[in-house]
Amino acid sequence: MLAKPPFMDDWKKIQEQLKNFRDERDWAQFHNGKDLALALSIEAAELNELFLWKNADDANVEKIKDELADVLGYALLLADKYDLDINQIMMSKIQKNADKYPVHKAKGNAKKYNEL
Amino acid sequence: MLAKPPFMDDWKKIQEQLKNFRDERDWAQFHNGKDLALALSIEAAELNELFLWKNADDANVEKIKDELADVLGYALLLADKYDLDINQIMMSKIQKNADKYPVHKAKGNAKKYNEL
Amino acid sequence: MLAKPPFMDDWKKIQEQLKNFRDERDWAQFHNGKDLALALSIEAAELNELFLWKNADDANVEKIKDELADVLGYALLLADKYDLDINQIMMSKIQKNADKYPVHKAKGNAKKYNEL
Amino acid sequence: MLAKPPFMDDWKKIQEQLKNFRDERDWAQFHNGKDLALALSIEAAELNELFLWKNADDANVEKIKDELADVLGYALLLADKYDLDINQIMMSKIQKNADKYPVHKAKGNAKKYNEL
Repeated sequence: MLAKPPFMDDWKKIQEQLKNFRDERDWAQFHNGKDLALALSIEAAELNELFLWKNADDANVEKIKDELADVLGYALLLADKYDLDINQIMMSKIQKNADKYPVHKAKGNAKKYNEL
Repeated sequence: MLAKPPFMDDWKKIQEQLKNFRDERDWAQFHNGKDLALALSIEAAELNELFLWKNADDANVEKIKDELADVLGYALLLADKYDLDINQIMMSKIQKNADKYPVHKAKGNAKKYNEL
Repeated sequence: MLAKPPFMDDWKKIQEQLKNFRDERDWAQFHNGKDLALALSIEAAELNELFLWKNADDANVEKIKDELADVLGYALLLADKYDLDINQIMMSKIQKNADKYPVHKAKGNAKKYNEL
Repeated sequence: MLAKPPFMDDWKKIQEQLKNFRDERDWAQFHNGKDLALALSIEAAELNELFLWKNADDANVEKIKDELADVLGYALLLADKYDLDINQIMMSKIQKNADKYPVHKAKGNAKKYNEL
């Protein structure tokens, strides 16, 4: 039997890169939870601006790459800040959403769970 | 030489789970790029609400897990929508930011690149 | 008794200016409700960016003027789009909030109404 | 000639109502500029949620009234916080936008000023 290969998972690799970037600039002092969340929402707005006044799929894909990367960057820094296991929180949330949106009620409509 | 180990990367595993969830509910019809980006920013606002009227680090961590997972969920669905390689866009953006924020200018201050 | 003086209310005066600006540029074609709301939230994010990584009151007031005016501009265009009477919706919402946040429960704390 | 009628302007009347509501609950202590701006953007996201997964004009107008009133409420509290003259900042911003978007360049297209 082969030994388990020496890989870190993807999130952690990117988180390490983001933290190196941050620490080279001595920016951890600014990265409290509130400002990281605020930064994330500002980047989300920049992502939305790519779609403003346009049909749903007319945004510039190269710019989407940049803005989505910014959103993900702050999301990963937040996860690191609170020492969250991303795979775990994702699987847990998908399970919660499965309970809120049972297939037989939610299939084919986009109503919010409290209106189903 | 050993064969490459049979692992999918993390992002892809979660993306598969999210797409299964979506497809069981026949929701792909609603998931155009514009509405996915909009949904992401709405979840980002819910994340921010956990910090509203509070000191920077007084938010409830259990709720942060839920809202951050929602943000990441839409981010991963957007990446899938545009067939983006997340590792690639993240590394590319970190490089761009390194150019915009050279260490000798950015160290220890939080100014925006166009004010450095 | 004097006749009521011939004044238009303030909101309407500004709405007229905004609509003139819009129509000179033939922009009404882009101003559906969804994109106006999206534009409003993007301007709200630009307003928030003035506070990012800063103490609560360290933002540049001249820039706040500009960004707040952008937010108000889209808010007034949305009100016009749906033919809303701003004084009426404001007074109605203040009354609703008074019911959600009774003084004896809400005084001195910042909890959300569903946690009071 | 008649004396100028004794009216306060509309914004000020609503601001007074909002401040009475705030002060009865002793909430001024939470209303620093950063959190007011954050609250505004959270309400803007709730407004956007009314349009999510929908065609541009399918939102519920009664709910738009409520969410738009929330946005305007925080905008007016911010203006009061910084002692801004709303009519003045609006007219000033419309003039700036007229310079950024000259009619002959902007007419009939929705490009951002830096792409005109």
